[in-house]
Amino acid sequence: MFDPEKPDGTNKTLEIAISENGEPKLNNTYNIPARCGIAVIVRQNQVLEIENTFGTQVCDFWSFNAQDIQEYLSMEHIHTSLGSVYLKVGDSLVTNKRQKMFTIIEDTSEGIHDTVIASCDHHRYQELGCTEYHDNCVDNLRMALIAIGYRAPAIPSPFNIWMNIPIDKDGKIKWLAPSSQPKDKIKLKAEIDSIAVMSSCPQDLTPINGENFKIRDLNFQVLENS
Amino acid sequence: MFDPEKPDGTNKTLEIAISENGEPKLNNTYNIPARCGIAVIVRQNQVLEIENTFGTQVCDFWSFNAQDIQEYLSMEHIHTSLGSVYLKVGDSLVTNKRQKMFTIIEDTSEGIHDTVIASCDHHRYQELGCTEYHDNCVDNLRMALIAIGYRAPAIPSPFNIWMNIPIDKDGKIKWLAPSSQPKDKIKLKAEIDSIAVMSSCPQDLTPINGENFKIRDLNFQVLENS
Repeated sequence: MFDPEKPDGTNKTLEIAISENGEPKLNNTYNIPARCGIAVIVRQNQVLEIENTFGTQVCDFWSFNAQDIQEYLSMEHIHTSLGSVYLKVGDSLVTNKRQKMFTIIEDTSEGIHDTVIASCDHHRYQELGCTEYHDNCVDNLRMALIAIGYRAPAIPSPFNIWMNIPIDKDGKIKWLAPSSQPKDKIKLKAEIDSIAVMSSCPQDLTPINGENFKIRDLNFQVLENS
Repeated sequence: MFDPEKPDGTNKTLEIAISENGEPKLNNTYNIPARCGIAVIVRQNQVLEIENTFGTQVCDFWSFNAQDIQEYLSMEHIHTSLGSVYLKVGDSLVTNKRQKMFTIIEDTSEGIHDTVIASCDHHRYQELGCTEYHDNCVDNLRMALIAIGYRAPAIPSPFNIWMNIPIDKDGKIKWLAPSSQPKDKIKLKAEIDSIAVMSSCPQDLTPINGENFKIRDLNFQVLENS
């Protein structure tokens, strides 16, 4: 049976929560270890800044309404809301209730991110030939929520920050290395109180985390009101 | 609170199930009334044929594993599996466990369908200015499942059959009328036992169901093994 709450395997994501309930120290730099996930509460008007420390790392991103975990960011609703499958500074990211949850207020990269590809999961690595457990973004999401006392109500489609998936005129997609640079940052202003989850994508069997297939750390901060 | 199971309003979808448990008479033509949804059990190797009787009607489509309703068709997983955001004859549609659920074995239309846009829902019509309840595909999904004794575990992103949403090279999308013709058919062969749900999309505030904004019936059959 498919269980959105329960990881198919585990890693240290279960032990590295930033606090018991996910509340951050404001303006403090937190690390997301390579291959792991972290959940953080971001209150309305606070800004979540994510840094691509080494420049080549994709960050899978999801967010849930802190008052109602069944409401979450939805890529298919964002496509309707923005009339686009790509996101840029000024765009608001909406939920499955078509409510604004975050607005992109700064992006130092070229703005190449993905909104159409599923997060990697246990089944993806089986398909790619793994015979043992492989860290994966879906389990990182599940574990990061468990680590602060929540359970994933479903596995929403992710906002894949810095993931380079061009779509050609015939709808064909490619898996390319990120075009981002070391220390590139994206700033997301919270429109409502949110439980944001970030995963340092452990995909090391395709070049989406760089041509050298090396998974790296990310950093983030929650900044005082913008 | 967002509840995936509970409709925000109701229509006659609740009363028009094809049978108590969704089991069809094989090779029988069933009608999907305009603005309504129907759920049907399609067993492995049977073929679901959907007919766009009047040529201009979009059919929102979802499907769940009959043995595990938490496993369902997932557009974001299909994009990865096919390396494309468009689908064509021969393509298999996979689930959130990356398992093949249906294969497109025939499509008499030009093959223009959508996989990136959310189903219309109560919140979409509120956004478009409706002050009263408007029929919507998400509620049709919820009600069609209730009508045969199931509950939606989540609202998966839909396969929008005949919906004409071109994506340009900059990722911008448009809402156009279908390019399909009266009596166009699509045939989907079941790879596993499935609970398929179809909605005659009630969107009459944009031209996606034809330039005259008229919502029409659809027909379907479940055919004996292919």
